[in-house]
Amino acid sequence: MYKYSFFNDYSEGAHPKVLELLTKTNFDQESGYGEDDLTSKAAKLIKKIIKNEKAEVHFVSAGTQANLIVLASILKPYESVIAAKTGHINVHEAGAVEATGHKINLVESSDAKVTVERLQEVLSGHGDEHMVKPRVVYISNSTELGTVYYKKELKAISDFCRKNGLYLFMDGARLGSALCSEGADLTLADIAKLVDAFYIGGTKNGALLGEAIVLVNPELQKNFRFHLKQRGALLAKGRILGAQFLALFQDNLYFELATHANKMAAKLTKAIKKAGYKFLTESKTNQIFPILPNKLIAKLQKDYGFYIWKKVDANNSAIRLVTSWATKEEKVDEFIKEL
Amino acid sequence: MYKYSFFNDYSEGAHPKVLELLTKTNFDQESGYGEDDLTSKAAKLIKKIIKNEKAEVHFVSAGTQANLIVLASILKPYESVIAAKTGHINVHEAGAVEATGHKINLVESSDAKVTVERLQEVLSGHGDEHMVKPRVVYISNSTELGTVYYKKELKAISDFCRKNGLYLFMDGARLGSALCSEGADLTLADIAKLVDAFYIGGTKNGALLGEAIVLVNPELQKNFRFHLKQRGALLAKGRILGAQFLALFQDNLYFELATHANKMAAKLTKAIKKAGYKFLTESKTNQIFPILPNKLIAKLQKDYGFYIWKKVDANNSAIRLVTSWATKEEKVDEFIKEL
Amino acid sequence: MYKYSFFNDYSEGAHPKVLELLTKTNFDQESGYGEDDLTSKAAKLIKKIIKNEKAEVHFVSAGTQANLIVLASILKPYESVIAAKTGHINVHEAGAVEATGHKINLVESSDAKVTVERLQEVLSGHGDEHMVKPRVVYISNSTELGTVYYKKELKAISDFCRKNGLYLFMDGARLGSALCSEGADLTLADIAKLVDAFYIGGTKNGALLGEAIVLVNPELQKNFRFHLKQRGALLAKGRILGAQFLALFQDNLYFELATHANKMAAKLTKAIKKAGYKFLTESKTNQIFPILPNKLIAKLQKDYGFYIWKKVDANNSAIRLVTSWATKEEKVDEFIKEL
Amino acid sequence: MYKYSFFNDYSEGAHPKVLELLTKTNFDQESGYGEDDLTSKAAKLIKKIIKNEKAEVHFVSAGTQANLIVLASILKPYESVIAAKTGHINVHEAGAVEATGHKINLVESSDAKVTVERLQEVLSGHGDEHMVKPRVVYISNSTELGTVYYKKELKAISDFCRKNGLYLFMDGARLGSALCSEGADLTLADIAKLVDAFYIGGTKNGALLGEAIVLVNPELQKNFRFHLKQRGALLAKGRILGAQFLALFQDNLYFELATHANKMAAKLTKAIKKAGYKFLTESKTNQIFPILPNKLIAKLQKDYGFYIWKKVDANNSAIRLVTSWATKEEKVDEFIKEL
Repeated sequence: MYKYSFFNDYSEGAHPKVLELLTKTNFDQESGYGEDDLTSKAAKLIKKIIKNEKAEVHFVSAGTQANLIVLASILKPYESVIAAKTGHINVHEAGAVEATGHKINLVESSDAKVTVERLQEVLSGHGDEHMVKPRVVYISNSTELGTVYYKKELKAISDFCRKNGLYLFMDGARLGSALCSEGADLTLADIAKLVDAFYIGGTKNGALLGEAIVLVNPELQKNFRFHLKQRGALLAKGRILGAQFLALFQDNLYFELATHANKMAAKLTKAIKKAGYKFLTESKTNQIFPILPNKLIAKLQKDYGFYIWKKVDANNSAIRLVTSWATKEEKVDEFIKEL
Repeated sequence: MYKYSFFNDYSEGAHPKVLELLTKTNFDQESGYGEDDLTSKAAKLIKKIIKNEKAEVHFVSAGTQANLIVLASILKPYESVIAAKTGHINVHEAGAVEATGHKINLVESSDAKVTVERLQEVLSGHGDEHMVKPRVVYISNSTELGTVYYKKELKAISDFCRKNGLYLFMDGARLGSALCSEGADLTLADIAKLVDAFYIGGTKNGALLGEAIVLVNPELQKNFRFHLKQRGALLAKGRILGAQFLALFQDNLYFELATHANKMAAKLTKAIKKAGYKFLTESKTNQIFPILPNKLIAKLQKDYGFYIWKKVDANNSAIRLVTSWATKEEKVDEFIKEL
Repeated sequence: MYKYSFFNDYSEGAHPKVLELLTKTNFDQESGYGEDDLTSKAAKLIKKIIKNEKAEVHFVSAGTQANLIVLASILKPYESVIAAKTGHINVHEAGAVEATGHKINLVESSDAKVTVERLQEVLSGHGDEHMVKPRVVYISNSTELGTVYYKKELKAISDFCRKNGLYLFMDGARLGSALCSEGADLTLADIAKLVDAFYIGGTKNGALLGEAIVLVNPELQKNFRFHLKQRGALLAKGRILGAQFLALFQDNLYFELATHANKMAAKLTKAIKKAGYKFLTESKTNQIFPILPNKLIAKLQKDYGFYIWKKVDANNSAIRLVTSWATKEEKVDEFIKEL
Repeated sequence: MYKYSFFNDYSEGAHPKVLELLTKTNFDQESGYGEDDLTSKAAKLIKKIIKNEKAEVHFVSAGTQANLIVLASILKPYESVIAAKTGHINVHEAGAVEATGHKINLVESSDAKVTVERLQEVLSGHGDEHMVKPRVVYISNSTELGTVYYKKELKAISDFCRKNGLYLFMDGARLGSALCSEGADLTLADIAKLVDAFYIGGTKNGALLGEAIVLVNPELQKNFRFHLKQRGALLAKGRILGAQFLALFQDNLYFELATHANKMAAKLTKAIKKAGYKFLTESKTNQIFPILPNKLIAKLQKDYGFYIWKKVDANNSAIRLVTSWATKEEKVDEFIKEL
């Protein structure tokens, strides 16, 4: 067993305030399938925060579920989604999007971010009915490599999408960390203006489970609950998703938790840099990718849990360290001492 | 607002012992995606109870999810599943099975149960490659009309399936209620011997959410986790499903809860019969379908929540009353007084 | 070997005039994938005959292909198609529609025809997101039991569909026979006014292969060629479908061939009635279903090919006799002598 | 209008001998759906030529249809197919494979050929249930860039596949041209030993339409006709596919036609090289990709039809010239004079 795990941001259960609200409301008789008061309040709260009363908010259990349902609900059979090669939907969802019948058009990216130039190349290469028709752009924020989109970048992608009849969808499994990262200049309200749909990740930021899908573009809202039901995502006790997001978004808890996670990662980053090591990407979020000597990695692995991400050269590898709302600062300090 | 709701068995949250275990284990660092200790213990416990160490147990969030994944994992593209016309997969899952590409062959049934005779008719009518090839029989226990399968019946269906190269799958969303109903003669171990796969419903019997899929037939076990992932069912914090089933199955809680629900339903049944009313089906489980005068229904609806199931004649309708582990006996008594 | 086969209407190749046009145009260099002159001319001719210049005409290889592509192109993932239980898409297409992800809602029918009453029942029973949302009505004309729709009937269904937001699709695998049947009061132009999409069957009325899909409703036309390509239906030499329909529709050949087939069936019907036998359905088209003594059937089977359709009682069965454009009157006469 | 088209190898109809056999057998009464004598004879002939009596041969209408059906018949929902980025299934089939639910894992390739090194990389990168499981390797021969596989190369891929539990599938839309190309060292019998399934393209080598799917590995044969039916590929008059392949493979016609096509392409290649131009790929087959000055291209386009394949630099582009069984040598000579 490890002294401490930096494997991921879902090693613990939920923040105590989340459990408290679940417990407090436990015996209220509520309607099923997300038509309860708790869900309704949580949705209202999120719509207030994103400053868009006409958006629709739907809660689901998990990120892959959110991605596959949103994309399948938008796309016609012959339409495709564009994503970075590193995109979660491309790499780590066991072909969930393809299982709903759709191709993913891939673009190269060294930092896991999509750019207008790469999008234009895909569009230029797809001209007739012998090829799929790209219709959605998928981006993750923060990305699978810990990077984030800045307002100017997101605006450029958004403009490109609107000009070219593409929908823009943001996977926010780690959106809290992105929004609260050092130098971040996007708010939830900004995002709601620039994308057509996104989801706010709960699982990786303090909930037991749960992601809040926000459908901003009214064209995407119609009959969405049918999609949820058909893909097995409507929970009989939908209340437990509503209650958790209520707990996370009243009193700013969601942002506090993400800020803590980032702070812990930043402390690690600073110490690792000080120790003279480089990083695979420039990350201000709760996932960092330091490049360490294999010998040091072997030593660290005796006491700490983390993934070896990528071989860099004969003697060095990038590892992934992930912090979370639950990461204890003393454990970070202990880890640092081992460097 | 209603004084009390008999709408369904998922109006409340979880049994306190379930919440307790979630809270108690909350800060343990565990592996993700169901590879944690809690899940492992819960699976082991269930395999012990069904007396089959070679079975596989997988936990998912919801019943529709369980049904669509199990069926899609078994069937080749041209294969179909046979179900009663009333079957949940046919009526109330928004085409989830068809969305995975498979046809449901329907059989008529007045009590929601499937019989060997009806199955034989389907097989006799499917002879060549111009038609789908039936490969799985789907049954729900207890059924959508509150009825249950008895050992002799299940044995007959099981024998028929094995003889004819069909797999048998039992939807156990309300399996607890079936097993604990008056006169029931099946155990979980019996079921594990007679079917190829089934699931044990948690959501409707004391959990916040969760269904335990049991794959008995080794042919159905291979690579099942790929299916779970692809359909969006692998929770990052799979631990919360494991923990809940652990709470439910250690100390027999699961059966106690179901027994309470049935007892409350039986009390209602007895009183309604005494008041001179008939029932749509003979149910010993936690769903009952009394046929009441429309006038009485209108009066009851002022204070109590329940569904009107079916018009029976000009003046009478069948309603559905559902009890659960959380149903308060005093509320049942109050309801009875209104008859 | 049989003296003669009444098994079906696709036992021979193509009408000589069809082969002639294929041969005559064989060495012209044409564009691929249906963008050739022959296809363009055939489409134009059909649009003229149906009196709708804004319709789109697309040619495919086979009936199941036509059905699955049209339906999959119309339906959103959670939407379903309503059909008679006897409908070809339900019984004899190996689950092709479900393989594209969609449920078929079935209605009972003794003559294989759909009625407004049955459709209303389906709509009344589908109210929320826990069920599929019926969106298309599928009818076949002539039906699988040889019956046809009359103008009044089709108008009633069409009105019902338009009032209820349903699309109406007609499977015309044997449309020629329906249009040319005794007492028929529908023209192709009538049909084009009353349905949203239909196809005109070539395979069973003189072509080597080919069905002409007609998309009347402009909402259904957009990007249809993407669907054709994705389902494997765009032929590199699409010209061979265009050429065949050109041969069939210039000089009225299509209707002459269907009339001949019907005439042969009518001759059989008359003789069988005269011999004292009844029929399973009242058919004026090229499929007839006489009920004959099993002994007689056994005798006829020695020399003639046909299917035994259905056991009627201990001593009698309904058989299916199918005539076609190629049926020789002398063979019909010989068959009659055996009765 | 062009003086002559080098756009593709499906600009004309069928070779006269193919039309002759269709005409000659036109009035024979045959069984439907490929259970006729002509199909049976053609299948037998092909099995003899590939020296494998246990193989199964099925005829379908088109290449995309062949690809999607074979792949969908092999793959479990979570399994994927590996292909070169240039592969027809990836680029030019409008997402047909994904529409059956499966991901395509892409490998880079400058000559459109797959190598063992690239395959190994894909396998190494796919380790658990969070990713798809690669199960089939797709190769096209000749490739989309006119190149061919040699025996040593195919043997290496075949060995790799067998060692790693992968099936090997060859898209033979232009297999004739590959087999008859200068320096080719593979026979149909060799291929049948090295792959698990392949198809022999008819459409692009003398047929009106038709591809012969050969299932060599017995594991892939079971119930294949169900797949054909479900995807809309079983033609009522399947005889017309059988007849065409019978015409092509009796008397070696198939190979003669491919040889002629290659000879015409070789003549073009020689002349273009002599005129001082380079090529995008080294092609010995009927597709060649010369790199010409844009000015010359503009001049040639006035009289000849061909595609501009790719911009090479500011002043030069690669064009694609395709020859076929029907290409007239005099037209090739005229084209050469224009260089």
